[in-house]
Order: sequence, then structure tokens, then C-alpha cells
Amino acid sequence: MATDTAETGAEASPPTYAQPDVDVAALKVLLDGKYAAVRDLVRTNLAAYSSILEEAETMTRDEFRDRVKKVVVEMAATGQTGMGFPEEYGGGGDIGASVAAFETLAFGDLSVLVKVGVQFGLFGGAILQLGTKPHHDEYLPDLITAQTMGCFAMTETGHGSNVQALGTVATYDLATQEFVIETRGEEANKDYIGNAAQHAELAVVFAQLEVGGKSEGVHAFVVRIRENGEVVAGVRIEDDGQKMGLNGVDNGKIWFDGIRVPRTALLNQFADVTPSGVYESDIENPNKRFFTMLGTLVQGRVCVGGGGINAAKVALVIAIKYGLRRRQFEATSEDQEELLLDYGMHQRRLFPLLARTYALHFAQEVVATQLHDVFSGTLSDAKARRELESRAAGTKALGTWHATRAIQECREACGGAGYLSVNRFTALKADTDVFTTFEGDNTVLLQLVAKGLLTDYASEFEDLDQFGMVRYVAGLGVETVLEKAGVHKLLERIKDVLPGGDEGWDQEAGLLDPEYQLAMYRFREDHMLGGVARRLKRGIDNDMNPGAVFSLVQDHVIGAARAHVERLVLEAFVEKTRALPNGDLKVALNLLCDLHALSGIEADRAWFMEHGRLTSTRSKAITREVADLCRKIRPICGDLVDGFGVPVEMLRSPALVGGR
Amino acid sequence: MATDTAETGAEASPPTYAQPDVDVAALKVLLDGKYAAVRDLVRTNLAAYSSILEEAETMTRDEFRDRVKKVVVEMAATGQTGMGFPEEYGGGGDIGASVAAFETLAFGDLSVLVKVGVQFGLFGGAILQLGTKPHHDEYLPDLITAQTMGCFAMTETGHGSNVQALGTVATYDLATQEFVIETRGEEANKDYIGNAAQHAELAVVFAQLEVGGKSEGVHAFVVRIRENGEVVAGVRIEDDGQKMGLNGVDNGKIWFDGIRVPRTALLNQFADVTPSGVYESDIENPNKRFFTMLGTLVQGRVCVGGGGINAAKVALVIAIKYGLRRRQFEATSEDQEELLLDYGMHQRRLFPLLARTYALHFAQEVVATQLHDVFSGTLSDAKARRELESRAAGTKALGTWHATRAIQECREACGGAGYLSVNRFTALKADTDVFTTFEGDNTVLLQLVAKGLLTDYASEFEDLDQFGMVRYVAGLGVETVLEKAGVHKLLERIKDVLPGGDEGWDQEAGLLDPEYQLAMYRFREDHMLGGVARRLKRGIDNDMNPGAVFSLVQDHVIGAARAHVERLVLEAFVEKTRALPNGDLKVALNLLCDLHALSGIEADRAWFMEHGRLTSTRSKAITREVADLCRKIRPICGDLVDGFGVPVEMLRSPALVGGR
Repeated sequence: MATDTAETGAEASPPTYAQPDVDVAALKVLLDGKYAAVRDLVRTNLAAYSSILEEAETMTRDEFRDRVKKVVVEMAATGQTGMGFPEEYGGGGDIGASVAAFETLAFGDLSVLVKVGVQFGLFGGAILQLGTKPHHDEYLPDLITAQTMGCFAMTETGHGSNVQALGTVATYDLATQEFVIETRGEEANKDYIGNAAQHAELAVVFAQLEVGGKSEGVHAFVVRIRENGEVVAGVRIEDDGQKMGLNGVDNGKIWFDGIRVPRTALLNQFADVTPSGVYESDIENPNKRFFTMLGTLVQGRVCVGGGGINAAKVALVIAIKYGLRRRQFEATSEDQEELLLDYGMHQRRLFPLLARTYALHFAQEVVATQLHDVFSGTLSDAKARRELESRAAGTKALGTWHATRAIQECREACGGAGYLSVNRFTALKADTDVFTTFEGDNTVLLQLVAKGLLTDYASEFEDLDQFGMVRYVAGLGVETVLEKAGVHKLLERIKDVLPGGDEGWDQEAGLLDPEYQLAMYRFREDHMLGGVARRLKRGIDNDMNPGAVFSLVQDHVIGAARAHVERLVLEAFVEKTRALPNGDLKVALNLLCDLHALSGIEADRAWFMEHGRLTSTRSKAITREVADLCRKIRPICGDLVDGFGVPVEMLRSPALVGGR
Repeated sequence: MATDTAETGAEASPPTYAQPDVDVAALKVLLDGKYAAVRDLVRTNLAAYSSILEEAETMTRDEFRDRVKKVVVEMAATGQTGMGFPEEYGGGGDIGASVAAFETLAFGDLSVLVKVGVQFGLFGGAILQLGTKPHHDEYLPDLITAQTMGCFAMTETGHGSNVQALGTVATYDLATQEFVIETRGEEANKDYIGNAAQHAELAVVFAQLEVGGKSEGVHAFVVRIRENGEVVAGVRIEDDGQKMGLNGVDNGKIWFDGIRVPRTALLNQFADVTPSGVYESDIENPNKRFFTMLGTLVQGRVCVGGGGINAAKVALVIAIKYGLRRRQFEATSEDQEELLLDYGMHQRRLFPLLARTYALHFAQEVVATQLHDVFSGTLSDAKARRELESRAAGTKALGTWHATRAIQECREACGGAGYLSVNRFTALKADTDVFTTFEGDNTVLLQLVAKGLLTDYASEFEDLDQFGMVRYVAGLGVETVLEKAGVHKLLERIKDVLPGGDEGWDQEAGLLDPEYQLAMYRFREDHMLGGVARRLKRGIDNDMNPGAVFSLVQDHVIGAARAHVERLVLEAFVEKTRALPNGDLKVALNLLCDLHALSGIEADRAWFMEHGRLTSTRSKAITREVADLCRKIRPICGDLVDGFGVPVEMLRSPALVGGR
């Protein structure tokens, strides 16, 4: 039987394969990309403040909050945190650099990361993107140096992800030319607001704007909530208290009791109210206006996704270095115990996660570049902006889910030692846990991705609520949806280059052919998208309530969105690898890319079999190939994690990774 | 097309189905079983000490450790923690009661649970099971009241799961008739030892016994490590410091520097050293002796498995109650947002976990009963004891992995609110995380399960190390292994009662027929076990190193063990449900049992398709059936979690489950 030796995994690699010799420095250069200098600046800062990793454990919550604030202010002085702001206000004028800096910060204490995100990303980003020159002049210089701290008061207790439904109201008072801001209803207080409990002097507050008795939808206002550290009259703040992690960030709840702010407090980039109480906006459709405002905040999502991916790297460095030192049980020798990473199961558990981390790293590079291009004006059309929003949402979801999973697996792979706080997993797990639900709940984000896909980012996009989207897709017809989404065309093109042609490509192409791997990912996306469109149409044709239809096909919607983002991630990795010059580095990255692609197909092999794209024989062959790829990665796995360039001070874990 | 409406999930349930009306009190009686009174005593104690859930957050680590100690001592006074010890020493004389008490304690703070486990289970259990009357007389009375605290010093830094390889040595000194205990080698210090850092006066120390220059393997000794709170000479203790969770337990490292203990300090139930230095044991084979000693400690595993399952219940109560209160986004109505649990995806995410919790609850009841019977002497043959050890290992692994997964999913299902410590998930996640690696790493435990299965718990079992096991199985032949394991016979019997007979049962039987579900689980187990035996034999036949063979098939070994335990769990649930009188409770439990069985098949449907036991059509039908079962469980899900009887004080989470 041909599989005899293969089944015990003892087959030899094809003779053409020669184990690559990885140049770690060159790998780091490749991974760091354009912003290598920025990343190194952050690495230096992280090392300088490495004591904070211990302080997170030893300080009281109040002490630690103050310590984190101090570190943020001091890092701001190095220019590290202000790279995305215009130079005329003291910033660095480079959005791509600011993303690179933020991502790298995720190697360290994540309270620092999140406080930086709140201050410069959310608060600062809202002032920059939603405000106009007077706001910039007034607020940017002091917020860039972190001399003035602010918060971003969007989420309410009663409305986590449904921002359009929030209950805070800002009413224009014509007599005094002020807005009166009020928390209306039981759970309409702001909640989980970072910087609110202690440090913020200012807040960007999202509220339903009412002018002349008419509601104009959600708008943002700058509101002073503290004066010299004391909460001002008309504002009540409660501390959110102890959290699972990120206890260096002071999250709080805020209630507004008729506090008054001047008319100019409205961040008026997209809409304004004249002194005489006339509401004006260039964007007529309120839904579109809302999504345009929200869309400017996309940078936060790009940053959180990158942060999650880099936090996963820290966990992988520790677990893989430990697996290369730790021996457990006699296995192949009676005299010496076996290295953990010489167990096939241990390779299986860690290497697909390592490969996926690489894949997500390069996908993140693509979305960060798009962000830079769109916000620097290189790419300015509306469709590019919407594609960016979709890609940012999708990468954030996959990146943060990956972080949760990889960190947990790495912690378990370190046994009982992984449970000691000195070994980093305590903080990594607790601090990143919320990444999957903040800056947009991942499930909700994937729904946005699906909506964009289904409607081809149509100009109607922003006009569509859930009901409208369902009706729109049903009206369009399945074929049109698929054609507009464009996957079908990509798929056809690829099948042309594979052996077997239209019918047999999935059986005859080589498993390690990237065209085959991409065709599989594209087939899944195309098929799932078509399934959603068909189901939506059928529901509407059967006179069902559009909301009920959506609710019933929700899991297919999420599945299609996920398949789409997985395809984008794989494409990013394949393209990056293809572009490399021949050599050992390319061989090494090809191993990772193949492992990522095939372990992805393996994980979803039930679906591929159900849909006739995988025979059980080929499915088992993929499983064997994954194991073989793991064995090939085994000798270079230490180099592959060293390439991440995680500062050794950020690893701690002396007993796991070896003393320093 | 027949599936048209099914695909949008709109098909009606068959007319024979009537929604059950769940009697919560009756459900609680059913779940509490024989030891309802014991469980209620613990519930009362938990409510009385409920402030400890907050104290875990507000106290310093030292304060909290002392607080937990105090609670343990006070709970001991109620008789709750001593139920497993003989009545003549002040215990309750009922091992089953002690397991029930321990499991119930897992509804509360888990530092208390683990400290109870260390003191009464590990330390007390070792004195009871490995010691003889003089040890019982000297130690049991004070340890049952927790007046004397002890620790269980087995694990070493260098040897987590490989106890046989540990490096502490106890040498018999004939001149003084003492043992000299010494930490030999760099990583041979004891580590992660609960109670060691502060509270233990005594330690049961596992060490390699050397008598007259000969090593006799691992034995246990009682060693005084503190005198009036001060560490004695010859012992060095370091605090393990901050941990991910369980910070109310004082874990530490211990080094022994030639400390001397009297000859009678050897816990001599299974082996002794005479004053003149002769080693004596009724069990001749050293390997068998070692496993016999370890086997007496099985109660700890039974307890941890039960603790994990009950911790998962707490998370499910909170997430399901929240899903029944929280509305998010307009879906079926334009005026009101939809309840989370009216989204199909939300049902899908929580209800299979609920069903699995029920399944594991009843599987745990079976193993706890076996433990009681074996240790009370009702069942005393060696095979029953080994089956118990195997079942305890398997249930512990599945129960604790389930806890990790269920708690994480429930936390995410509560969005950002799940991240606040007041809502319990912080403690549940951090405290239970180590359950998968302590009291035996889950992966190692499943290897033990596989070893037992493959060798039919043969008397040779204890003689076999990894090498021996591989050779034994290879020598036995595949058919003999399968016949001895007995699954094949069970499978044949079941296929007789299913329509379709030998060839078509997997296509023609109804999905909701428990015989079909069991046949699928048994087929998988049988096939996987055969695959492992075949691979081991092939490796040996090809003259491979037995250890290398084992390492290569390790994932198959784990898979077979897992399939075995999954079958036992499903059997326990099916049998429990079958035995119920007809009525609403039976209907409700049948829904859960079907959901558990089918979502288990669904999760592994790729394997079933690869092995010809599932067509893609039937696979999709199972997915639809799972969704349908979820919809049927929706109206009764609140009752199903109320039946767990988690004291309301243990839920906290006022904003999630409603104020009290």
C-alpha cells in the first residue's frame, strides 16, 4: 500500500527539498518592512520601560494607572505616539508610521498600548478626523504631547455595538447658542470608556443631535469633563472597577445631566448647526452621514488588529523557545528525555499558529498600506475607502481571534509554568481577551464585511440598514451579486492555469501549488457568498420579514465574510512570498505559506467535502502534508520566531526561554 | 427542492413534538442525585462566605491567602470537607459525599476549592491511602479540622508530568535509622506546590528511595517543613509568586538539603524499609508498585473534573440569563431590538455547550459512583480499579477542556461587560485555566487512557513504560486488541437494532435515534483504536525504535482515547435519559442529549466523511437538526440553567443577570 510508510509519517521528503538556512537579520528586515526604523524606536522605548511588566503585578491599581499614564506621556515625548498627526501641530505626518509604532508597542504591556490607542487613536483621531481647523488649533498640540488627556465616549451600557441607537442627546438651545447634553434613559450612560475614570480632561461625546425639535442622528461633541482634575458640574463619572486585564487603563461610566457646551463644540467636519439653529450637511442621507463619520475612525481597527497579531508573536516566541529547551518523557532514547518540539503533536499544535501569524502579519501590512494611501490622499475614491473599511474590519476580527487562540495554545504548551505570571501568559491572556469585542465586536464586524461584499460597496451601502440590505440583495439577484463581488472571475482565471481544467483542478493540481490553494479559498468564498444571496432572495420571495430572514441566515453571512477575509489573507501571503528573490528565505516562507494554506483547508475540510471539492483520499493527503510541513519547519522554528524581533526584555520567562 | 425552507430554517417541527414544561425543582433533584443534602450544605456555606468573591479583587495577595485559609478552616468545622475520611478520625466515612461536596464548592471562589483540594484531597488523601494506622493516628484528626496544614510535594520544576523521573532522593541511613532527603540536580526542586509558600507545616514528599545503595523508585515521606510557622533547617522554600489565578493559594518551590526524617516517616502502605535496612514490598514489580501508589490518588482527578464541569455551569447561567435580557439591533421588529438568544447564532454558540455540560455532569456522576464503590470496597478487583483510573483520567481531561472552552465562549457572549471583574468571568477564566494542566496534564492523561484501552487493562499494564506498551500492542495483533477493548462487540450489537443492517445503518437510521448516535461514536472509537494498533504494529515490524513509533502516532493515540471517553460520556447521558419516567423532564433531557450527540458528530463530521460513515447530504442534515434542536431548547433554556442550583450570590453580575 502506497500510504504504508506515509501513515507512520516516515516517508522521506522529495530529493529536491534542501533545508533552508534562515538569515534572521534578513527575515527581520523583511517583516519590519518600510517602517523598520520606527519599529526599532519603539523596541528601544519598550526595553527602556521594561520594568512596567513587573509593575503591572506589584502595584496597586491606582499606582499602576498613574504609572501607565507617566509612561505614555514620556513615550509621547520621543515622537513615537504622534506620528499620525500633521507636522504643523507637532506630529509626524505619516499615518503608516503611526500604525507601525502602535503595532510594535503590542510586544510590551498592553495597558500602555490601549492607553496610547485611547489618547492618540480614538480621542485624537476623532478631533483630527471629525473636527475642523479651530478644533485642531485648540486641541491637537496638547493632546499630541499628552499634556491634555481625553476620552472617546461612544459606547453606552445599553448599546454596545449598535451606535446608531444610542441614548445620549445633544439639544441645540437657540437662545444661548449652546448644546445641552443629557443622558436619557436607564442604560444610556457611557460605559467602558478608557481614560474616563481618572485622567481625561476632555471627552469626545457621541450623542443624538436635536435641532429645532428634529433629530439629526448621531454626532460628536467635545466636552470638558474635568477641570484641574475635578469632575465638572453636570457630569457624573463612576469607575468601571477591576477588569480582567488592562488594569492600567482607567475605564469608567459617564452620565450627562444637562451640561452645556458652546455651538463650536460640535465636531463639524461633516455637518454643522448655524448660530440661528439651521442644520447643514453636505451629505444628505443621514445613514450615509453616520457611516462616513464612523468610517474616518477606521484607523483604530487597523491598529487593534495589528496589536493582536503582535501579542500573539510574543506568546509564540516563548512557547517555541520553551519547546526547544524542555525535555519530557523518554521517547526515542532510553537515556534522555525527548525535546517537546520533537513530538509531532507539539509541532502540530504550534507551527500552524506560527504560519498563520506570518500570514496575518503580511495581510496586516496590506491593510496598513491601504490605510496610509487612503488617508494621505493617494487613493481617494469612495470605493477604495469602503474596501479599506471592510478589510480593516475583517483583519481586525481574524487577527484578534487568532491572538486569543494562539496565546491560549501557547500557554497550555508551557504546562504549569505557563500559569506563573512571570512567564507573561497571565498578562497576555487577560489583556488581549477584550480585543475580540472592543473596537467593534468581531461578529458584528464580519457582518459589515458581508454587507459590503453583497452590495459591491455600492453607493447605496451607507443607506442600507439590515432591512434595506436584505431587500437590496434580494432585488439584485444572485448572479449579479456574485459578478459584482468579483470572486467568480478570479476563480475562473485561476482554474485556467491548473491541471484538470474546469472539472478536475481540485483533484489534479499539486497540494503545494499556490494556485490550487487560492482556488480552494476562492471557491469557498464564491460558493458561500452565492448561498447567502440565494437564501436572502428566497426569504424575501416567500414574504418573510427581512429581519427574520437575516437572522436565520446570519451564520452563513458570517461564514461568507470569514471565507472572504481568509482569501485576502492567503493572497497577501502568497504575493509576498512570490515577490521574494529565490533563496533560503523564500524557501522558508514558502513552507510557512503552504502550511498556512493547507492547515486552513484541513480545518474546514468537512465543508470542502460536503461541497464536492475534496475527496476523502485527498483530505487525508492534506493532513499528511501538514504534518510533513511541520517536520520541515522544526529545524528552523527558532529562527522563525527570532525574526519577529520581540525585545528579549519583553519575554521575561527566564525559566522558559533561558536566562539572560 | 425539499430543503428550500429548511435552508432558511423555517420548517415547522413535526406535529408530535410538544414543548416541555420544565419543573426546575424536579430537575435540580435529578441533577443533585444521591447527595442532594451534601450539595445543599455546601450551597449554604458558599452563600455565607460570598464576600470572598469580592475580597479576591480587593485584598492584597497576602491578605487574600490568609482569608482563604480562614474560610477553609471554618468550612472544615461544618464537616463539609472531611466527608471522605474515616469516621473514627472525625470524618464522614463517605467518599461519594466528599466528591459531591468538592464539586459543589466549584460554584464559588476557586482558590477555596483548590486549597480544600490540596489539604484534604492531596495531602490528606496521601496520608490516608499511602500511610498506615500510625500515620492515620498521628495526622488525620488535625488535618481533618485543618488545624494542621499540609502540602503534597510531588511535581518538580524539571519534571512536570514525568513523576517516575523526579530528582529528589531519600537515602536510608542505617546508622541513625533515618532517611536523608536531598534535592539532587538543578531543576529537581519541588515546584507549584500549593500550601508550601506559607501555610503548610507538613509535606508529603515524593522522592527516589535509596536503600543500601540501591534505588527502589519513587516513594512518599511525611516531612515537617515548618515549626510554628518557621521553615525548618534543611528546607528552603521560595514563593512561586503571582499566578494567572488562584492567588488565594500559596504555591511554592521547595529544596531539601539533607534534612533527616525518622524511618517511620515513610508512608508504608505498599512498601517499607526495616530498621536493619531491608526494603520490603508485596508488589514485586517496581513499575507496578509505582502505578499502584499513584492509583490511590485517583480521587483528586475525579474531583478536579467535577470542579471544572461545575465552574462551566456558573458561566453558562450568567451568559444564558444575559442572553434572555439583553437586546441588540433591530431584527424582526423595527421598533424593538432583538433578544440576543433569539439570534440563531447566539443559540448555536451557547446551547451545544449547555448540552455538553449536562452530558459531562452525568458522566461525572458515573465516575464518582465508581470511585465510591472501589474505595468503599464494593468493587475491589484490580480491573475495576484500573477502569476507574482510566475513566477518571478521561473525564478529567474532557471536563476541564470543556470548562476552558465554555467559560471563554460565555465571556465573549457577554460582550464588553464580560470583561468587568464584577461579572465573574475574570475569576472563572483565570482560576480554571490551570485545570487542564494540573492533577495530570490532559494530553498525558489521554495517553494513559489509550494505554489502558490498548492493553485491556492487562495485569501487564503497570509493567509497561512507553516502549513496553508499543511492543506489547505490536505483539498482540490488531484483532486481539480490538476484541479485548470490547467496542467492536458493542458496535455489532447496536447495528443489529438499526434499520439498514450492517451496511446501511448509518444512512437509514433516524438522526434522533440514540442507537444511531451511539453506533457512530462506537464506530469512531473502534476504527481509531484499530488504526493505532495497526500503526504501532507496522512500525515495530519495520524495525523502528518503539519510542519513535509512539511519537509518530501520538496524535492517533490521543484521538482514540478521546473517542473512547466521548463514547462513555454519551452512554452515560443516554442511559440517564432512558431511565427517566415519561414526561416533560424526559422530553427536555432528550433534546439536550440529542443536541450533545449530534453536535459532537457535527464537530467531527470531516472524520466521519473521510471514513465513509457520513454522506455530504446527511452531514448537512445533521447541521440543520442541530439548529432545530437549538430552537426547541430556546424556550426552556432559562429553566435548564436554573436547574443547576448555582446560588444566586455566586453569580454576582448584577447588570447581566438582573439585580437581586
